[in-house]
Amino acid sequence: MIEAVLTRIRIVLVEPTGDRNIGSIARVMKNMGLEHLILVNPQCDYRSEAARHMAVHAPELLETAQVVNTLPEALQGCQKAIATTGLDHDLPTPLESPRIALPWLLDSPSALIFGREDRGLTNQELNLAQRLIQIPTSPVYPSLNLAQAVGICCYELFQAAQSTDFNINQPTLDLADFETLEGLYQQLETLLLEIGYLYPHTALSRMEKFRRLGHRAQPTTPEVAMLRGILSQMTWALRRSQ
Amino acid sequence: MIEAVLTRIRIVLVEPTGDRNIGSIARVMKNMGLEHLILVNPQCDYRSEAARHMAVHAPELLETAQVVNTLPEALQGCQKAIATTGLDHDLPTPLESPRIALPWLLDSPSALIFGREDRGLTNQELNLAQRLIQIPTSPVYPSLNLAQAVGICCYELFQAAQSTDFNINQPTLDLADFETLEGLYQQLETLLLEIGYLYPHTALSRMEKFRRLGHRAQPTTPEVAMLRGILSQMTWALRRSQ
Repeated sequence: MIEAVLTRIRIVLVEPTGDRNIGSIARVMKNMGLEHLILVNPQCDYRSEAARHMAVHAPELLETAQVVNTLPEALQGCQKAIATTGLDHDLPTPLESPRIALPWLLDSPSALIFGREDRGLTNQELNLAQRLIQIPTSPVYPSLNLAQAVGICCYELFQAAQSTDFNINQPTLDLADFETLEGLYQQLETLLLEIGYLYPHTALSRMEKFRRLGHRAQPTTPEVAMLRGILSQMTWALRRSQ
Repeated sequence: MIEAVLTRIRIVLVEPTGDRNIGSIARVMKNMGLEHLILVNPQCDYRSEAARHMAVHAPELLETAQVVNTLPEALQGCQKAIATTGLDHDLPTPLESPRIALPWLLDSPSALIFGREDRGLTNQELNLAQRLIQIPTSPVYPSLNLAQAVGICCYELFQAAQSTDFNINQPTLDLADFETLEGLYQQLETLLLEIGYLYPHTALSRMEKFRRLGHRAQPTTPEVAMLRGILSQMTWALRRSQ
């Protein structure tokens, strides 16, 4: 049962550069019952001899790792995503601790996103996640090795899966998945540009605010359909009046 | 205040063989506010270029690392020690989880002991610790990389130090330190051999039981002095009657 819960969680690495790190991550994922690894535009040979050496008895996670070009592709089909950040950002989303936030991933198809070894994730990438976590560290030297950061989070997920009296068959809300929400945001953006609420040069930052609001609301699939119905109706009404 | 609590905890590695592992451990220790690294008979060049490369901004932990020949030397002056094990042992001490046991190290000079990459710690080494922990892992692949295991434990220590309303100046019991307890066990063993309770070939395993009992009791320094007084008196009485 624990396994079934954990295998639905994807570990997503954005543009990783260290093959040894990826091998270590494969090993610690298997140690903690996780198996779904996605690499977004990897910058190294993640099946190199060094990577396999570090993976030890988890080479199959390197074999079955999915490679995609962009973070949105990695999140397709996910209902929940948490991104990690080592830096303080000027985003309106609070930074939570792994222990508090990670159990939330356990009851849905979900993703845990890690950024580049040197620069982490961009604000745009962070905005694709509903929640943000930061691993607590000493202010003297806050920057964790990527494999250590993944290891700590996988450990927390495993602990949460063990301690939760989790019923995977319980009726759950039909939360809208990643691409359903993206469709809503894109339709909204098109409309807002059309009515002159947004200008092309302000669209990105303003849409991030709507995106945050949407993330917090966690709408269901029928609710997104309802919102999109309103937008379609408004677009139709605009066209008619022109 | 957190720092003061954490810097009293020693991370002890017994016969580590991987220089890169030791470098990674230096980094994650500094990330988590720990700084006291002790290497028992290291089997590699722990200040190699590869080790420094992995330590990144924590090379001073490699410089200040203490090297000793035996585990008892590494534990001198400690009042509390916890050993880690990846294997199930036939020891009478229960295996606890890091989250439950590690906060206990925070209020005293203490040590957290990790074994060899391939074979862990011997029973005799495990018996030098009062408590044993095992990091929870998937039964499919339970064996963690050494640096990952240290990272997870350091993270738990840092979390515990942050969450504890800890007053380092509170009056604490004068718990007997490692060498004080060792003195008691050795005096007891000598006496028990002399009176024929122990035989040389059974002494080791039998003394481990006393050691366990003593660990659980956690005697203070005056209590150990009292017990040793009794042993001395018995020895004196034996000599007189011979």
